Amino acid sequence: MNEPIIVNVLIASYLEPEYVEQIRAAAPEVTVWYHPELLGKPRYTADHTARPDRTPEQEAQWRDLLAKADILFDFDFSNREDLPELAPQLKWIQTSSAGIGQFVKRHRYIERTSWIFTTASGVHARPLAEFALMAMLMFAKDYRYLRESQEKQSWQRYSARELSQSTVGIIGLGKIGREVARLAHAFEMTVIGTRRHPERGAPDYIAKLYSMADLDAVLSQTDFLVIATPHTDETDNLISARELALLPKGAVVINIGRGQVIDQAALVAALQSGHLGGAALDVFAVEPLPPGDPLWAMPNVIVSPHSA
Amino acid sequence: MNEPIIVNVLIASYLEPEYVEQIRAAAPEVTVWYHPELLGKPRYTADHTARPDRTPEQEAQWRDLLAKADILFDFDFSNREDLPELAPQLKWIQTSSAGIGQFVKRHRYIERTSWIFTTASGVHARPLAEFALMAMLMFAKDYRYLRESQEKQSWQRYSARELSQSTVGIIGLGKIGREVARLAHAFEMTVIGTRRHPERGAPDYIAKLYSMADLDAVLSQTDFLVIATPHTDETDNLISARELALLPKGAVVINIGRGQVIDQAALVAALQSGHLGGAALDVFAVEPLPPGDPLWAMPNVIVSPHSA
Repeated sequence: MNEPIIVNVLIASYLEPEYVEQIRAAAPEVTVWYHPELLGKPRYTADHTARPDRTPEQEAQWRDLLAKADILFDFDFSNREDLPELAPQLKWIQTSSAGIGQFVKRHRYIERTSWIFTTASGVHARPLAEFALMAMLMFAKDYRYLRESQEKQSWQRYSARELSQSTVGIIGLGKIGREVARLAHAFEMTVIGTRRHPERGAPDYIAKLYSMADLDAVLSQTDFLVIATPHTDETDNLISARELALLPKGAVVINIGRGQVIDQAALVAALQSGHLGGAALDVFAVEPLPPGDPLWAMPNVIVSPHSA
Repeated sequence: MNEPIIVNVLIASYLEPEYVEQIRAAAPEVTVWYHPELLGKPRYTADHTARPDRTPEQEAQWRDLLAKADILFDFDFSNREDLPELAPQLKWIQTSSAGIGQFVKRHRYIERTSWIFTTASGVHARPLAEFALMAMLMFAKDYRYLRESQEKQSWQRYSARELSQSTVGIIGLGKIGREVARLAHAFEMTVIGTRRHPERGAPDYIAKLYSMADLDAVLSQTDFLVIATPHTDETDNLISARELALLPKGAVVINIGRGQVIDQAALVAALQSGHLGGAALDVFAVEPLPPGDPLWAMPNVIVSPHSA
């Protein structure tokens, strides 16, 4: 008879109790440690990065659990740098976010451990795509004009654009980018985009697929630029002043990927000069977006606090 | 040999010269009279209801043309009541709007003439549906919270809803209502609705079709109520205090049909009491919406000046 294998799962960021029960029900053979008093208190639904506030006794208790954990649900954000030493048995981290590349790189987890990482890639595709479509509709319908007219109680009829008259250029056709493409296609927009491996093809609602080397060709025909790519060495500052200048005058930039993919100072300049028609940003070079940053006060910019 | 038939088409509201040329090219055998100096000056693109400002000589010239016209492009809004007498040869009016029922009724054109009416029904479906989807996304994403946070330069992450978690109830499944349904289905919303003739069926992206007699059943499960029905005797004040009370708390009302379909005072009361989560209105009981009307200043109401 084989020895029973004991697998310890440690929940390392706040999770609603009903989800913990779902994990226990799905895998009754594993031990699931869930101690909300040792975790950061969520500041909003699905907040997984709140820092815990532990007494020394609680920290000792936490480290006891870490020492015996085989699997972590989410990173231990309270012990980022020392995690490999504190969790010597650890084999697998299931993260609550989709983009973990730069975080893993910063702490050299790949070099220092043999952990397996699995991400929540995909779960954010729908809400992020909805945010992108909301932004496109708001700019096409000139919502700013509507709101300013409403504030003045001014009834002046006007003529708005239809999305079907516009081209959306999507940088990064992973799950998020493809969901944007699918919805944009439902509005009969012309959908083009780039993916890192164009040889892998694209769904037929994408009118034309380009390689990253052909980024300039995408930009020159794009009315709505949607950034849906992770932050890697290749995408760092991918969209800078030169690329923004290639967009047609009045184009709108929507970033639902990572802030570092756009040169944010160049973006501000292109908005201030009037070359760009607007921007809708869920991510920023530095988060939280610092008070006083010019993006906050621009009337043609929608700032979303990395929540879309 | 037959006598040549002379057909005179009089353009009775402002039309871009390129569209006049398209009409002439499409029907070279007819005479198209286009005198922009005799027409109202458009206040915005596709404005067809501006009143003309004619000198007495110009009015006489206009009436000469009316007397010989066989076909009118659009109503003569400057001679509404006398039109049957001024245009004795008239056989056909092609209107620039979709909903003409009440206008025709008010002037008793059906009783007084044998004119044929053809409308622009359908051309407004896409932009109206886009307005409805913009509004649904803005409420689901709590855009008001985003804007207020941005004004305060306050970075507070939050959790928004997805449209796929919601039910849209569409009153009136003509071209406009069906286009709303199609797009809502792309977002995986649950789509239900009513049509006057449910026996005519519905496209399969409508989960359940109800008769107007079952309106209450639609309302009680609807998160987003979309009014896309014309104003007729049957739809006058169709949605009053009783119907609004049947909607779940927090529901949103979107009116892209006609203002008279909703009891506007009851709507204001349901918004003020907090029963409704918001409203997005392109049409109103009285247009323009009068200055000082409470709808203008409500933070959870989007006022659009009959332009969507």
